[in-house]
Amino acid sequence: MSFSRIAIIGPGLLGGSVAMAVREHLAGGTVSLWARRQAAVEDLRQRNIADLASSDLSEVTRGANLIILATPVGAMADLLAQILESGALADNAVITDVGSVKEAVVNQMDAQLAEQPNIQFVGSHPMAGSEQTGVEFARSDLFQNAACIITAGKTSRDDSPQRISEFWRDLGCRVMEMDAAAHDSAVAKISHLPHLIASALVNSALSDDPSVASLSAGGFRDTTRVASGSPAMWAEIALENRAALREPLERMAGEIRDLLAFLDGLKHEELLHFLERAKKLRDAL
Amino acid sequence: MSFSRIAIIGPGLLGGSVAMAVREHLAGGTVSLWARRQAAVEDLRQRNIADLASSDLSEVTRGANLIILATPVGAMADLLAQILESGALADNAVITDVGSVKEAVVNQMDAQLAEQPNIQFVGSHPMAGSEQTGVEFARSDLFQNAACIITAGKTSRDDSPQRISEFWRDLGCRVMEMDAAAHDSAVAKISHLPHLIASALVNSALSDDPSVASLSAGGFRDTTRVASGSPAMWAEIALENRAALREPLERMAGEIRDLLAFLDGLKHEELLHFLERAKKLRDAL
Repeated sequence: MSFSRIAIIGPGLLGGSVAMAVREHLAGGTVSLWARRQAAVEDLRQRNIADLASSDLSEVTRGANLIILATPVGAMADLLAQILESGALADNAVITDVGSVKEAVVNQMDAQLAEQPNIQFVGSHPMAGSEQTGVEFARSDLFQNAACIITAGKTSRDDSPQRISEFWRDLGCRVMEMDAAAHDSAVAKISHLPHLIASALVNSALSDDPSVASLSAGGFRDTTRVASGSPAMWAEIALENRAALREPLERMAGEIRDLLAFLDGLKHEELLHFLERAKKLRDAL
Repeated sequence: MSFSRIAIIGPGLLGGSVAMAVREHLAGGTVSLWARRQAAVEDLRQRNIADLASSDLSEVTRGANLIILATPVGAMADLLAQILESGALADNAVITDVGSVKEAVVNQMDAQLAEQPNIQFVGSHPMAGSEQTGVEFARSDLFQNAACIITAGKTSRDDSPQRISEFWRDLGCRVMEMDAAAHDSAVAKISHLPHLIASALVNSALSDDPSVASLSAGGFRDTTRVASGSPAMWAEIALENRAALREPLERMAGEIRDLLAFLDGLKHEELLHFLERAKKLRDAL
């Protein structure tokens, strides 16, 4: 294995699953977990998914050659500053993250690491995890066949993107490299837009008269499932990626205006073509 | 069983499943099936899901005391006219349908049956069947726990709505009575809107660059699954129910405008509230 000492900072569903998957798929490495609250540390110890769990950042990162930031994106800069201050990392340590947006994260990390010649950052976005959050839902097979996007930054050198790719591939991911802007635009369309639209759909359909929910069948349930995701997490993700979300949201509003015009104008051909276009794209998934 | 001779007109997924469910759940009744094309009749015979299959309407409806119109809504008026002309129905026969809209159907049937004192119409909408169409997907358990809405018309008399309710309940449905306008508004929100939005979402996310689909995980797949439904069927349903669809589509466009304003204005509290409202409604399903 390319990394022998792995520190996971803020293990929830994703970080916890990384710890479990490392133990199952990668022999010979140690994993240490950091949580801010002592109660969370106790819980992690009870789960026995790592070699060490502690609320002491320098204890957890001491000698680590892979650090995985698995906190909300907004907390990463502060934590990285503390980690660098403690000076506990191994030489040539690689830092990565599991954040849902990449441009903001990579730019921030690049700036913070500009004066640290021995530490590199490579962004990661493993697209796993459903509407659940929390280490209690973590599982070792979470990454099986999940897409994982790797984004190199200015501090990525030598073979560090390849080593990070290999790490995720060992955990079961389909790995793709993509620059930060392309990543943010792609996930805005394929992940963040569907979440916001599912929530908007629930609000549109049920706000006035929630009792119509008694008529819901599989279609409504599937279409709106992700609206059960964590509001705090998705509010943060959407705001972090607001620049890339603008165009697909505007487009969505335009598609709805088209639909209203087709219905008002009894435009059967246009409506049929709209639905056929969608079916063709959806069937190709 | 309340109905001893059942004729199903135009059996596809729904009508075929009714035939199979009657055989499994209702003892002592005969079922006959009508299809327009001889090839479809041969196919129905091969499947052996009914006592008789024919393209001769008067043969299929002779002596029937329950007639189920299972064709597209647009074909029903013509077929009813032919059935009435043949004069083959039993006295006090009850006609029902499986259409996705009720106001247009019930008004049409009421008008056609106004001069027929011995024949009644009661509308039905069993909310079963997924994105699949065609008798090849029919199955006897399609109606298990499905919602079925019953809509009485001007010609519904005596206990015919109760008898129709009992029929669907025997096949496994959860039956609700609702007037036609309330039905059309409710299904516009809970069924037709999600279909159109899923198609609009696919078109918004994938039209420019279908390759981003390689990043799709469970969320996008679930949210867009119904966009694989039959374009011809859904175009017809949406146009039939266009009056009731206007308000929820306008509302959806308004929710998207709100989202854009929250993101542009960095309005974290408002966005959080929006997502929390949706989660609460969705979790209550």
